[in-house]
Amino acid sequence: MPKVGIIMGSDSDLAIMKDAAEILSQFGVDYEITICSAHRLPEETFRYANSAIDRGLEVIIAGAGGAAHLPGVIAASTLLPVIGVPIQSGALAGVDALYAIVQMPRGIPVATVAINGSANAALLAVQMLAMENAALRQALQDYRREMAKAVLNKDRKLNQLGIKAYLEG
Amino acid sequence: MPKVGIIMGSDSDLAIMKDAAEILSQFGVDYEITICSAHRLPEETFRYANSAIDRGLEVIIAGAGGAAHLPGVIAASTLLPVIGVPIQSGALAGVDALYAIVQMPRGIPVATVAINGSANAALLAVQMLAMENAALRQALQDYRREMAKAVLNKDRKLNQLGIKAYLEG
Amino acid sequence: MPKVGIIMGSDSDLAIMKDAAEILSQFGVDYEITICSAHRLPEETFRYANSAIDRGLEVIIAGAGGAAHLPGVIAASTLLPVIGVPIQSGALAGVDALYAIVQMPRGIPVATVAINGSANAALLAVQMLAMENAALRQALQDYRREMAKAVLNKDRKLNQLGIKAYLEG
Amino acid sequence: MPKVGIIMGSDSDLAIMKDAAEILSQFGVDYEITICSAHRLPEETFRYANSAIDRGLEVIIAGAGGAAHLPGVIAASTLLPVIGVPIQSGALAGVDALYAIVQMPRGIPVATVAINGSANAALLAVQMLAMENAALRQALQDYRREMAKAVLNKDRKLNQLGIKAYLEG
Amino acid sequence: MPKVGIIMGSDSDLAIMKDAAEILSQFGVDYEITICSAHRLPEETFRYANSAIDRGLEVIIAGAGGAAHLPGVIAASTLLPVIGVPIQSGALAGVDALYAIVQMPRGIPVATVAINGSANAALLAVQMLAMENAALRQALQDYRREMAKAVLNKDRKLNQLGIKAYLEG
Amino acid sequence: MPKVGIIMGSDSDLAIMKDAAEILSQFGVDYEITICSAHRLPEETFRYANSAIDRGLEVIIAGAGGAAHLPGVIAASTLLPVIGVPIQSGALAGVDALYAIVQMPRGIPVATVAINGSANAALLAVQMLAMENAALRQALQDYRREMAKAVLNKDRKLNQLGIKAYLEG
Amino acid sequence: MPKVGIIMGSDSDLAIMKDAAEILSQFGVDYEITICSAHRLPEETFRYANSAIDRGLEVIIAGAGGAAHLPGVIAASTLLPVIGVPIQSGALAGVDALYAIVQMPRGIPVATVAINGSANAALLAVQMLAMENAALRQALQDYRREMAKAVLNKDRKLNQLGIKAYLEG
Amino acid sequence: MPKVGIIMGSDSDLAIMKDAAEILSQFGVDYEITICSAHRLPEETFRYANSAIDRGLEVIIAGAGGAAHLPGVIAASTLLPVIGVPIQSGALAGVDALYAIVQMPRGIPVATVAINGSANAALLAVQMLAMENAALRQALQDYRREMAKAVLNKDRKLNQLGIKAYLEG
Repeated sequence: MPKVGIIMGSDSDLAIMKDAAEILSQFGVDYEITICSAHRLPEETFRYANSAIDRGLEVIIAGAGGAAHLPGVIAASTLLPVIGVPIQSGALAGVDALYAIVQMPRGIPVATVAINGSANAALLAVQMLAMENAALRQALQDYRREMAKAVLNKDRKLNQLGIKAYLEG
Repeated sequence: MPKVGIIMGSDSDLAIMKDAAEILSQFGVDYEITICSAHRLPEETFRYANSAIDRGLEVIIAGAGGAAHLPGVIAASTLLPVIGVPIQSGALAGVDALYAIVQMPRGIPVATVAINGSANAALLAVQMLAMENAALRQALQDYRREMAKAVLNKDRKLNQLGIKAYLEG
Repeated sequence: MPKVGIIMGSDSDLAIMKDAAEILSQFGVDYEITICSAHRLPEETFRYANSAIDRGLEVIIAGAGGAAHLPGVIAASTLLPVIGVPIQSGALAGVDALYAIVQMPRGIPVATVAINGSANAALLAVQMLAMENAALRQALQDYRREMAKAVLNKDRKLNQLGIKAYLEG
Repeated sequence: MPKVGIIMGSDSDLAIMKDAAEILSQFGVDYEITICSAHRLPEETFRYANSAIDRGLEVIIAGAGGAAHLPGVIAASTLLPVIGVPIQSGALAGVDALYAIVQMPRGIPVATVAINGSANAALLAVQMLAMENAALRQALQDYRREMAKAVLNKDRKLNQLGIKAYLEG
Repeated sequence: MPKVGIIMGSDSDLAIMKDAAEILSQFGVDYEITICSAHRLPEETFRYANSAIDRGLEVIIAGAGGAAHLPGVIAASTLLPVIGVPIQSGALAGVDALYAIVQMPRGIPVATVAINGSANAALLAVQMLAMENAALRQALQDYRREMAKAVLNKDRKLNQLGIKAYLEG
Repeated sequence: MPKVGIIMGSDSDLAIMKDAAEILSQFGVDYEITICSAHRLPEETFRYANSAIDRGLEVIIAGAGGAAHLPGVIAASTLLPVIGVPIQSGALAGVDALYAIVQMPRGIPVATVAINGSANAALLAVQMLAMENAALRQALQDYRREMAKAVLNKDRKLNQLGIKAYLEG
Repeated sequence: MPKVGIIMGSDSDLAIMKDAAEILSQFGVDYEITICSAHRLPEETFRYANSAIDRGLEVIIAGAGGAAHLPGVIAASTLLPVIGVPIQSGALAGVDALYAIVQMPRGIPVATVAINGSANAALLAVQMLAMENAALRQALQDYRREMAKAVLNKDRKLNQLGIKAYLEG
Repeated sequence: MPKVGIIMGSDSDLAIMKDAAEILSQFGVDYEITICSAHRLPEETFRYANSAIDRGLEVIIAGAGGAAHLPGVIAASTLLPVIGVPIQSGALAGVDALYAIVQMPRGIPVATVAINGSANAALLAVQMLAMENAALRQALQDYRREMAKAVLNKDRKLNQLGIKAYLEG
């Protein structure tokens, strides 16, 4: 049974939102993925949010661009933590989506990550699930260690090769 | 039976939204006024929008600040024209509300007016109602004439009194 | 006789504004289309706005970029509802046009849609015309149903194909 | 033993961050509160984050203004979910803090809420704790019901008193 | 016969635009002052611009806030140089007016000065008039010398009194 | 003897600033063109400005990007009207240059045009020169007539060809 | 002989810039303080920068608001490190000054600090002087220790008094 | 022994930060170069900063994009002057990095240069080192002279070739 719901307003968001799915797979966390527009499918969106707990979800990751109401609309109809991913699109380059997601009124929070930050949305979901799951927390620890090692390796490589060779490499 | 629905996300918007009510009264247009939050009362908001046509409304004016989902959420569940009023509030001074209202995705428009522009929202509603109502159009014509006269009077007064006396007056 | 006037400040706006024409055609709404600059043809712009009601227009859609005065200048000389479309262009990417269109002073509203949102401008015009036209309202209902179905289909397809195949598809 | 750590960069943030403490008290969630600057006390900040899990914390709420590094610096040294609260201060009115908190790089997320949104930060923390705590979830449900009732009451009062009396009330 | 026309969209701009009048008086340059809204008095605005050369004007200074069409609308109907003054007002604090004035399309320039920069608008007008007027140029030279002297005096005073006494003075 | 000085901070501005030269040529106005950086050649810049009147210049057009001090630095050392052209470059896309040019302090104006608006800078210079030159004013009148005709022709063509053929044309 | 030159464009900047003076005094670093406008006193500004090294200065701190050319103009005429302080003023609240100071072109850097950050400008100057001055570096170390202690004391006090008493204290 | 430490948060910053290395080489200043993320390697970052003085560094240049904590985190743990380079990346194009670097709180300054301004960061470092190094100051003088000559040469070439040939050249 999926524990994380990934939902996005349009299939044009998928190229960004797929990173969340990949991270969750990597951590062995079951997820479902849904395209559902708060504006074109208002009732379906409501039902999605309203039934999320009963369907066994524990966290929802919602991505949207432009006026970006999806994360807030879902947060309004569930008690689960909702993570919002502002998608970069159109003339305002995601600043509109960022403001429309992060500036939620008192009472209904959305946990907002960086513009196009769907990988971090998934990591945040894993951190929430790891609050009561030691194996998952260990996996997070390993993930960070890998990240750290990767940076150290790049630094070593840079200092071995020199700037020019590194950039050409 | 009210023809225009004025709705706002919080009673803190009322000091701005009351201008819309005053303009509609001035034009003899019946309206109803509602406080209803898209985030705190999602089902009531949906029912409001969904039943608007049956209740005889012809235009909806929706004001909201911050993440400002109310106008878009209502537009998603009615075929009536929805006019959105971004309310200035908090650190972003209404730019968040403007973006969250105006940047609606293809398919579900919101007719956006200036930040705090509730008077213009009402005038726009009257213009829509006047499309098939000659008396209302005449009233709009008269309203504009009064506005024009008021500017001309100010200009005359300025040129009679001079700048200093005008500013002190 | 055209019921909607589409007007734009430059033929460089046409690639965006053509969406409005397509939507209106799809709904069987007669329109006229005009290139007319508020700055290069001020008198023609004035005459366009001033004669719009007598020529039978019921709504005007005006698109402009940069300082974007066209929608407001037309709104100042007609009692018809004017819908403004900010066009993305130049260094400020349409924020200049958005501000120049939406921030109209009390008394003369412009119904502003998203940057490059000409399709929504047309849908808003149809919503206004549908206020007294049941057939048009039905057509709007059908249009929304099609939109909803399209999203549902994409969701279904995504869940059948999986993310990778969907994105490659 | 406190489950939530509230931390802020300066005591000038306390007037905002106290809302988080009040919400947590209201939900009966134990918290600790700390003033600790990422810039003036870098080692203490590191130790705070590094020891958070061992001290029994489950969520951290970190508020900061200006360059606002505190939430990200803490997130870098703990696997707990970190909620960031951008504080409005100085010439940039919190936009600097919002960007410095939300735009975290891939790998280290911060769950960002609205500028000055410390009450929502606490509600988000409660939502996370409620993932495995039915009583807390019920309390959230009740809290939302109260919020909803409060809006309905305001709406009723507005329609009883009329706009003028409501605003004067 | 006035050589400079000062025009503004609303009498609320007068507190700023009066600085332009004072500078022109100081230089002995005749001016006329007009309140005339591009939106509420479109025909009068057109006539103002269209007749400006025949009435003997040589430069026009136009101030406006918000959507701020006045300077551009006037520039479209006269060959005189038009100086635009963005007025700070409302939620966007004059950025809307700045963009709406400065971002004019190719063909119709407006010489834009700082937000609320009406004094500089007048100095710019004087600089234009001084192109063929040696006495005026000398007056400008004297004006600059006075400005320079004033700064030097402040510097001297600061170094005599010290910071504390200067600030209390 | 050149009447207009075109000056720019870097040869990377030339692709934009050449439009000013072309407009001036078209009007038969003699100009000189200079690359001179306020930052790399401060003394030369000062001498340029300081000697401008004696060299017979009547207007200066200065283009710069980024911190864009050139127009203001020149304006500080000449009594001639200085027209500033903000050049779009780098991460801030010309907003930095716009602010650095338009927000001059009281006493030293720069007549600012749109970002990359060098053609309009030249037209503004011609308008200034035309204040005392009837032939030039007539040429401006003809220029505007040509612009107007061009728009009318485009409109005619659009209505003859239809949208699709026009866009393909 | 002063080692640090504090210079500002206007005496209205003094209320902010005095913090720099106080910090330098606290560290026992000799400074001179000057009001000198890049726009009103271009030659004096040039001479100030040009003679700075010969007068024994080692660092210059320059504060300015609006178009804020002073730091860059000085940097162009000296090889000393120049620290720029953007001053918050007017409609753009210091963003104009920040951009005009920080976005210097390749070749002529200005070390920019926060808007109104004159205290940090002075600390940065002290850090530069401490590069070859062990006593000064020790003083910096002590200063940081005091800052750290102050934060720790506030944290202790908060945890002794509780939030309410702390805020009332 | 390296005197300048160049450090960046990710190897994706190297294409920009390499300019700093080139400038330092050109001036014969020894540097070390490091990739080290404040978020992925918090302890290594702390150790880097904490040991910088003992390793003989005199200035640190730190580049970062997005939330851009690296420069500030390093500044918090060393008394050396830290120069911050905001890197343009992602949807906010470096404005996020600029704000996160420049808006440091009182007590811990970062000397911020332009977005992507790593060459200037290096020049600023050289200016600091030149405070006590006459040979380096002379080298800076020569560098400026070369820059000045280059601009003069471009100007000469432009006036020899004409605009068209220059642009094609």
